[in-house]
Amino acid sequence: MTQSDFSISRRSLFGATLGAGAVAAAGAVSFLPSPAQAAAPKAGTPLAGALRYKVGDFEVTALLDGYLDVTPELVVGYDEAEGQRLRDNALIEGNALRIPVNAYLVNTGDRLILVDAGTSDALGPTMGQLPSALSAAGVSPDQVDALLITHMHPDHLFGAVDKDGNAVFKNAELILPEVDNAFWYDDGAMNGAPEQFKPFFLGARRAAEAYKSNQTLISGDKEILPGVRSMALAGHTPGHTGYTFDSNGETLVIGGDIIHMAVYQFDQPDWGIGFDIDPAQAAATRKKFLDQAASDKLLFAGAHIPFPGVGRVAKSGDTYRFVPAAWPYAY
Amino acid sequence: MTQSDFSISRRSLFGATLGAGAVAAAGAVSFLPSPAQAAAPKAGTPLAGALRYKVGDFEVTALLDGYLDVTPELVVGYDEAEGQRLRDNALIEGNALRIPVNAYLVNTGDRLILVDAGTSDALGPTMGQLPSALSAAGVSPDQVDALLITHMHPDHLFGAVDKDGNAVFKNAELILPEVDNAFWYDDGAMNGAPEQFKPFFLGARRAAEAYKSNQTLISGDKEILPGVRSMALAGHTPGHTGYTFDSNGETLVIGGDIIHMAVYQFDQPDWGIGFDIDPAQAAATRKKFLDQAASDKLLFAGAHIPFPGVGRVAKSGDTYRFVPAAWPYAY
Repeated sequence: MTQSDFSISRRSLFGATLGAGAVAAAGAVSFLPSPAQAAAPKAGTPLAGALRYKVGDFEVTALLDGYLDVTPELVVGYDEAEGQRLRDNALIEGNALRIPVNAYLVNTGDRLILVDAGTSDALGPTMGQLPSALSAAGVSPDQVDALLITHMHPDHLFGAVDKDGNAVFKNAELILPEVDNAFWYDDGAMNGAPEQFKPFFLGARRAAEAYKSNQTLISGDKEILPGVRSMALAGHTPGHTGYTFDSNGETLVIGGDIIHMAVYQFDQPDWGIGFDIDPAQAAATRKKFLDQAASDKLLFAGAHIPFPGVGRVAKSGDTYRFVPAAWPYAY
Repeated sequence: MTQSDFSISRRSLFGATLGAGAVAAAGAVSFLPSPAQAAAPKAGTPLAGALRYKVGDFEVTALLDGYLDVTPELVVGYDEAEGQRLRDNALIEGNALRIPVNAYLVNTGDRLILVDAGTSDALGPTMGQLPSALSAAGVSPDQVDALLITHMHPDHLFGAVDKDGNAVFKNAELILPEVDNAFWYDDGAMNGAPEQFKPFFLGARRAAEAYKSNQTLISGDKEILPGVRSMALAGHTPGHTGYTFDSNGETLVIGGDIIHMAVYQFDQPDWGIGFDIDPAQAAATRKKFLDQAASDKLLFAGAHIPFPGVGRVAKSGDTYRFVPAAWPYAY
């Protein structure tokens, strides 16, 4: 029996011949259970977040590294009345947005590419789950051929090394945006940054060092691997870069941190996050990207959009709307 | 280093001291890879859909059985102009909605309860993945203590038995809505139904028979297990039933098929699906449920709402809006 066996009408398939009246109401059997212990113990932990899809002939797996809570103090350009309105609209209680950290694994057939590496223990216990997500996807770190980094922030790069500073993806070529690499290696930038950001610089360098023997710097918008192009999206960091994956007429753009706070930034694309190196440039880049995404109906994935973080953008006036793809079932 | 180590301002955390100008633009290294074979072969299949959350002290795991495509011919009350508008709004190309089949596993600590059992092979190869989702959740069918059924349709009940008609969850008590059970055992109803629906009746009986020695019929709105209540939601089928799970001040309502087509029915709650036994009653029940969900800010899960299918409802005028919960990160 398949769905196509059914001849269908726009009225109830059962028509008028049946209804609730056809049911004989019998006496209910009441049920009072005795105390018991579940046959299976509680797990006590979440399951790994890993969902796999296809884009053309490429296999794309969204991997959940964890989450962080974003309070208004972190929002550049924040307005409390508008923030409250947008949280109310999203039925959020309290003033924090809980946002995920997503990474994406792409098997192109000739390369297994990981886009961003998760956080490891750099930002506390709510992140650093990428290794178990990768394991749930049936992939060992040794199998990753290329590690593409959207930018060198802790939640995108620091998972590339272990506690001893050794490469986690030991057979992978590390592909880094050259402009970002220059920035995080700039001692003047580091010394001019607030003290609490020095670990960002030192950690970025430490991770990059671990791949020194197998590292490529890229820049601009160009093909960097077969079917894979870079897309400069500067602002959040100077070298912040998206990656497009093209296969068989289908395209996915992995947009990195073009959006941090979906609840706010589709409505208020001028708002930024305190981690933006250049908030004004980040906002201009965001609006340009969202305009292009809407007009081209781009399928895009975002590192901080609700997991699995894949969808399209609609534009209405000066605001945008994210429409999650019904993608998990499209394999 | 934790998030709380940062002192934060509403301007860029880096302030005005840094910007894109701090970056030295160096020459890019170009990269042209040689043809290669990925270290890991493509998987060729999707990953199991399984995400675990907490509701109070209960652990809830959303399980993806698969998907089906719903074309306008299946929609009761459908209007093409409005249908096109709603699909455009959801950036859907073509006229089919791809909807999931979700089931939910709840570990209350004293029982491991599965709400709905998936489809098995009853409706074709796009469904029947619940066993692998359950396995990904680390649970074997033998560990399920209770199988709660929202209604006795194929995609909710037929996965309860194997090809030989034996119980898949052999230690589970089958808990069925009594009114549904009476309907699907009613020979008059079966003989009055269109020919292609006879397998629905015969399959429902076959599944129920497999649990005859450990079966309970329930009805009305009452506590059926500790922390678990039934909620009569008649219309889609005569005994269609939701289940509420209460733990430590938190509540989840598993609403079964109260919504089939999220893209249509939150805007047009009067629209039904051809499988509704009584479309008018189903619409009235849907609107009453959505009103209650909106006013009580209920967390609810739906069998056909985009996986994992958990969120809240907002009401504006006569229409509703589904707001997915940021729940996957709330464990």
